[in-house]
Amino acid sequence: MSNDTLQVRRIGIDTYHENVAYLNRECGVYRAEGFQALSKVLISTNGSKVLAVLNVVDDSSIVQPGELGLSEQAFSRLSVAEGSLVTVNHAEPPKSMDAVRRKINGERLDQDDFNNITNDIVETRYSKMEMAAFLVATGQNNLDRDELFFLTRAMLQSGDRMNWHEALVADKHCIGGIPGNRTSMLVVPIVAAHGMLIPKTSSRAITSPAGTADTMELLAEVNLTPEQLHEIVGKERGCLAWGGTAKLAPVDDMLISVERPLGIDSQGQMVASILSKKLAAGSTHLLIDIPVGPTAKVRHMNQALALRKLFEFVGDRLNIHLEVMITDGRQPIGRGIGPVLEARDIMQVLKNDPDAPFDLRQKSLQLAGRIIEFDPDVRGGQGYAIARDILDSGRALAKMDALIRAQGAKVIDLHPGNLCHEVVADCDGVVISIDNFQMATIARLAGAPMMKKAGVDLLKKMGDPVKKGDVLYRIYAEFPADFKFAQDLANSNNGYTLGSDEQIIKSLIAF
Amino acid sequence: MSNDTLQVRRIGIDTYHENVAYLNRECGVYRAEGFQALSKVLISTNGSKVLAVLNVVDDSSIVQPGELGLSEQAFSRLSVAEGSLVTVNHAEPPKSMDAVRRKINGERLDQDDFNNITNDIVETRYSKMEMAAFLVATGQNNLDRDELFFLTRAMLQSGDRMNWHEALVADKHCIGGIPGNRTSMLVVPIVAAHGMLIPKTSSRAITSPAGTADTMELLAEVNLTPEQLHEIVGKERGCLAWGGTAKLAPVDDMLISVERPLGIDSQGQMVASILSKKLAAGSTHLLIDIPVGPTAKVRHMNQALALRKLFEFVGDRLNIHLEVMITDGRQPIGRGIGPVLEARDIMQVLKNDPDAPFDLRQKSLQLAGRIIEFDPDVRGGQGYAIARDILDSGRALAKMDALIRAQGAKVIDLHPGNLCHEVVADCDGVVISIDNFQMATIARLAGAPMMKKAGVDLLKKMGDPVKKGDVLYRIYAEFPADFKFAQDLANSNNGYTLGSDEQIIKSLIAF
Repeated sequence: MSNDTLQVRRIGIDTYHENVAYLNRECGVYRAEGFQALSKVLISTNGSKVLAVLNVVDDSSIVQPGELGLSEQAFSRLSVAEGSLVTVNHAEPPKSMDAVRRKINGERLDQDDFNNITNDIVETRYSKMEMAAFLVATGQNNLDRDELFFLTRAMLQSGDRMNWHEALVADKHCIGGIPGNRTSMLVVPIVAAHGMLIPKTSSRAITSPAGTADTMELLAEVNLTPEQLHEIVGKERGCLAWGGTAKLAPVDDMLISVERPLGIDSQGQMVASILSKKLAAGSTHLLIDIPVGPTAKVRHMNQALALRKLFEFVGDRLNIHLEVMITDGRQPIGRGIGPVLEARDIMQVLKNDPDAPFDLRQKSLQLAGRIIEFDPDVRGGQGYAIARDILDSGRALAKMDALIRAQGAKVIDLHPGNLCHEVVADCDGVVISIDNFQMATIARLAGAPMMKKAGVDLLKKMGDPVKKGDVLYRIYAEFPADFKFAQDLANSNNGYTLGSDEQIIKSLIAF
Repeated sequence: MSNDTLQVRRIGIDTYHENVAYLNRECGVYRAEGFQALSKVLISTNGSKVLAVLNVVDDSSIVQPGELGLSEQAFSRLSVAEGSLVTVNHAEPPKSMDAVRRKINGERLDQDDFNNITNDIVETRYSKMEMAAFLVATGQNNLDRDELFFLTRAMLQSGDRMNWHEALVADKHCIGGIPGNRTSMLVVPIVAAHGMLIPKTSSRAITSPAGTADTMELLAEVNLTPEQLHEIVGKERGCLAWGGTAKLAPVDDMLISVERPLGIDSQGQMVASILSKKLAAGSTHLLIDIPVGPTAKVRHMNQALALRKLFEFVGDRLNIHLEVMITDGRQPIGRGIGPVLEARDIMQVLKNDPDAPFDLRQKSLQLAGRIIEFDPDVRGGQGYAIARDILDSGRALAKMDALIRAQGAKVIDLHPGNLCHEVVADCDGVVISIDNFQMATIARLAGAPMMKKAGVDLLKKMGDPVKKGDVLYRIYAEFPADFKFAQDLANSNNGYTLGSDEQIIKSLIAF
């Protein structure tokens, strides 16, 4: 409880979402306060405060007694000049942790509880540990539908909200898990060519081998300011941008940064995450794609239906027009997995190339068709035909070219990596399954999405007959180490199951 | 996936239980691996490996490209010379997190699952975040009795186990929450004077104003090696030492370091923590003290009974002779709260001072009596009389003096702090309640336990009649800032409730 002041020193250490403060062990304040390494401390100056985790320093070249070191993030958050005087105290635990503890004890939380929690998270009062406790406590079936609605609304209110000043702002979102499923890059040009507003912002890949932003940035700039975004969308009726620049539902990003490394994700949190982001992005009409298959995120139809009801319940209460499409998630979509290979597939479809992957084209047309039917002037059932006409006529390609020019065109090179390994069939048969997760992992080991030209190119899909020695897929990489890791994994399990004609018929009927 | 080597550099930063690695942003390895700050990395040399959290450094005076900085903990764990060559790779998430995720999904875990989890925690494969996920997933009513037994056994097996080579090794433990409840320092000399083996190791205070180790170290050395401990116990039949030097159930300490800042604690985790620690310390006979009261940890008798059953169920399966005493936890025990003030109370009781706090004496005699009845030669019901005789005859004081000499006597100064504030009654009445939590917080703000002479000295207890202006208690402190904080809190709520004679009679009957 000392009021001694310390001089701020900026320490060139990047600690990402976590603020760190460095205090010399010989410092009087350290001794008086009974601090311990990893304590949470409150650093205050006139008017500005920041919370940080404490590291204790024994090396005076980093921080001297009488100084308080701050990591890059903490320093920029406190935003005072180096040498400014600050005081440091034990931080109070965030008040809303009381609600988290009540949730752990099985109680039901109300709207105020969720508002207080998301406010404390946005103000960086929660440590990673505390966020993990919140996520587990609210995970799985621990939130009822009303609590989920409260959470979504609280997450939405935690940040900015875009306003497009139109009555119909369309969007689509896939819950993920299917490699190659880059339909947004086809749906957006088709829907925008129809004249509907579809300002699509996407994330980069975190656990998958490619995200829409990773793939689109091969063709055009995706890192756009809100002003650029509004200008482009105003002119072209759509965009394909990275969503990271706007402060949309920032709590969502902070929770995801804990969820991903823990490998936990619940249906409830998925619904809250998607809907808060989409509402913050100003969407009024949303199509959700839920792929179902044995190696997809959702494995059974009854799970998909339960998830659909959850989306509908929360979406209706938040006044978004929401439709759900349950799609075939039994194998990757298209041929390429990885940014360059997926961009190649997309351009083939846009150019009506006869070799273009049929499933990617079909799925994109179905999704675009459903979105086009949000248009009150379109007769129910006519969306698909309109979408197909836009694609076949070349108007979708022209719109994509316009979007690329508007966002800032790049020199396009869609050749995959120089290192190439062919995985071949070890017997005759028919492809009866392709493991989504295994194919995504092979592509990631090969270097995707960081290495744009790395990935996997599928030559055979479900139902294709193969002879022993036929190439099933190619692995592309840019670096020998990555190349070897991906090959090793493919050798241990290549992700394909071959079987008889009868088995594939059975499996097709089963869906 | 690079195999480039880096030179190890020791960084003088103390990061407590968490290993941190520092990598320069310009380092080739950093760029090739696609690391991110806060990624978990695996650092390997010939034969030795360590997991760490990554911080990215922009200041070459801390770490240069081509170097890998390690925090004190990480450096000593890797145990190679500075300048040694190491490789750094993405760390795999711990395998046993699968089991944690299954638990989050509501499944039951088996003994193997708990063994794998505790092994991964001991090997520092779990981040704080992952430990928080485990704690919340297994908290509250999420573990059944069998799972709790598996967890306790796994925690026990995670570390060393002491062996006293005797058939009866007695111990006592209080679940905590009652300020001033320093009975161990009376029970140990009484029981050891009876001739029973009672090698008591205690923790320091973490969230309370004093622990047994904090208080005992005013009188004698408490930081003893296992060899010293064995020698002292062999000669004196007991000891009052700090338990931190032995590696007993280390998982327990690691989980507590996450539990405390989160403020979560479940009955199950409390049982696993206490029993694993006591079994690891070699105890065969254990008395558990569960205080019950409106401001105690356990607030209702039915909760206390449920907790007793849980202790009995797990204790029986782990072959420890276990008894539970449910005690009066409606107010602090004794007068002093804080190391010096509590040591003063204890010495008064040992010296049979007529001013000694009666409740501390009575409770200690009851606990000691129950432990003495573990002795097969003692007739049931005689324990209390034996304990009283040992205390009244001065043999307990003689034993305490012997323990102090054996552990290493200190120059004893039991005067409280120089700053003193008297809190007075603002009306006439009878003390009908004293808030345990509030009194503990006032004592902590005054500086206890870091400042040994700080704390609170209660002059009135429940049932005492008071006149307006009578002193209820004194606050002692050593530093003006602490003194002010404690006074401010006492002014806002002094923790005492005064009422009528009828109210106190009602409240006494209610217990």
